[in-house]
Amino acid sequence: MSAYVMPFQLTILGTSSALPTSNRYPTAQVLNVSGRFFLIDCGEGTQTQMRKYKIGFSKINHIFISHLHGDHIFGLIGLLSTMVLYGRINDLHIYSYSELQKYLSVQLQFLYANEIPFNIIYHPLNFKKEQKIFEDMKVTVYSFPLSHRVPTCGFRFEEKPALPNLIPEKIVEYQIPIRDRQRIKEGGDFITSDNIHIPHEELTVNKHPARSFAFCSDTRYDESYIESVRKVDILYHEATFANDNNELAQTTFHSTGADAAKVALKAQVGKLIIGHFSARYKDHNIILKEAQAVFPETRAIIEGEVINIEKPLLISD
Amino acid sequence: MSAYVMPFQLTILGTSSALPTSNRYPTAQVLNVSGRFFLIDCGEGTQTQMRKYKIGFSKINHIFISHLHGDHIFGLIGLLSTMVLYGRINDLHIYSYSELQKYLSVQLQFLYANEIPFNIIYHPLNFKKEQKIFEDMKVTVYSFPLSHRVPTCGFRFEEKPALPNLIPEKIVEYQIPIRDRQRIKEGGDFITSDNIHIPHEELTVNKHPARSFAFCSDTRYDESYIESVRKVDILYHEATFANDNNELAQTTFHSTGADAAKVALKAQVGKLIIGHFSARYKDHNIILKEAQAVFPETRAIIEGEVINIEKPLLISD
Repeated sequence: MSAYVMPFQLTILGTSSALPTSNRYPTAQVLNVSGRFFLIDCGEGTQTQMRKYKIGFSKINHIFISHLHGDHIFGLIGLLSTMVLYGRINDLHIYSYSELQKYLSVQLQFLYANEIPFNIIYHPLNFKKEQKIFEDMKVTVYSFPLSHRVPTCGFRFEEKPALPNLIPEKIVEYQIPIRDRQRIKEGGDFITSDNIHIPHEELTVNKHPARSFAFCSDTRYDESYIESVRKVDILYHEATFANDNNELAQTTFHSTGADAAKVALKAQVGKLIIGHFSARYKDHNIILKEAQAVFPETRAIIEGEVINIEKPLLISD
Repeated sequence: MSAYVMPFQLTILGTSSALPTSNRYPTAQVLNVSGRFFLIDCGEGTQTQMRKYKIGFSKINHIFISHLHGDHIFGLIGLLSTMVLYGRINDLHIYSYSELQKYLSVQLQFLYANEIPFNIIYHPLNFKKEQKIFEDMKVTVYSFPLSHRVPTCGFRFEEKPALPNLIPEKIVEYQIPIRDRQRIKEGGDFITSDNIHIPHEELTVNKHPARSFAFCSDTRYDESYIESVRKVDILYHEATFANDNNELAQTTFHSTGADAAKVALKAQVGKLIIGHFSARYKDHNIILKEAQAVFPETRAIIEGEVINIEKPLLISD
């Protein structure tokens, strides 16, 4: 089981909230699923962080924007301009509130008379219910409504389960012909020439279980989206405030560390990572500690870190 | 002459050109003239740099934008949004190509339905000739046309000369009455009761000579703007390329280090500082060396540095 596992890797580009700090960038994360790079939110300076942490601009084909507040979108126009300067030709897909198209189009019109060398394909999000917004061979992406002051969605990325491997010894033992092997990998059993039924499970071993990641920012605590993040391996949840600003969290539709941890606990996620800390906290440890008191498997994200999203191997769901 | 000299100080916030680098910000500088903070250009991430280098957002009342390329303007919307978040009420003056008003207004309309708590007063620049664009008790600011692919202006900041001090010993020696002192400071002579004529120069000492700074970015080499920067104490001039890309500099309307130095030499400036280096140069020393070969008093700007713009004291113009 030490076989090469395809990446399911999150790179943290920014961790802060709306007000600028001298040492943290606003929200942006990149999820690498087997070589597909998904950019989630794009605060000011995201392109600088991508350069710093070696995420190639040309690798980004899908951008997911949770909501249209400045600290989640002000990096877009710079990133798009850099893509223009580099002569990008591949389509770029942006998943967001539909109004973003207007916002970006008017800027691109101004800067380039809308003559840019690639297509931008806008995918409007649904703020009423969970929806599948992307799917290919390796991954499915869902959006789901959060509870913020403006239309806001979270995103869940689900790796597709890989087909299991046939166990070489079993191929020899039962003399399984090549023509049957793909069918068995896809779930079939094997009938020997003596008409003995060998179940799929005896013949195969799972490569690795499918992994999942969910992103929840910005939002106040709301049980409506718990089902959408149930049992993900890693949940990123905003934690703008500590308990001392619980009321402010309510009125601004943000979460405390404890709120984020309650979501993680109720949704039975593997691990919780928190960020989007308010600039008022010089040290966000207080937010982290309050979260850990509710859900011990909590960490604060750090700019530039790469998080390998993993399940314990050989444990099936 | 060791009296406190009012600041005439340039803080470098960004040094790079259009393509993002991992360790440099695009163009932005702040000039502090006796407590007035003038922001010159505003590339992406300028507000982060201001926070890092302790330039208070509320101190900025005047923003000068040389031209409307992304690496000089993408930080504006984030900075304005932060001013909104902080509840700014003071007027903000922006000096730029007139089209910037449209570009920013449409974004502010989108983000805040144009209901922001302060006025933005737009001052369109003149791209045909030099023009005085700001003046108060301490400083006069001029814009002058540069030669780039789009309408572009440079800026010159001229401190107003301070009135000289009366020499205390002379006041005693000639028993100068209080009523005459302001007139003498302003340039008058003194006639004693014995009808002896004492010239102004014998009675006064200059506090410090007026200082000046000019900003030229982006531009190709063009002698048309040399008179506008003549004899400034410090000239900032872009130097995007080294001589190896001389042709590219011509076709993109940018300067080499040697071009910048030629301007400095012909304009007889005190010192030259260069920046806006292309991302293709891992090490910009080649640009610097080529500039110094033409004009030895040249330095490359460094992010975060504070440059005290000085004249040698007691040397009059």
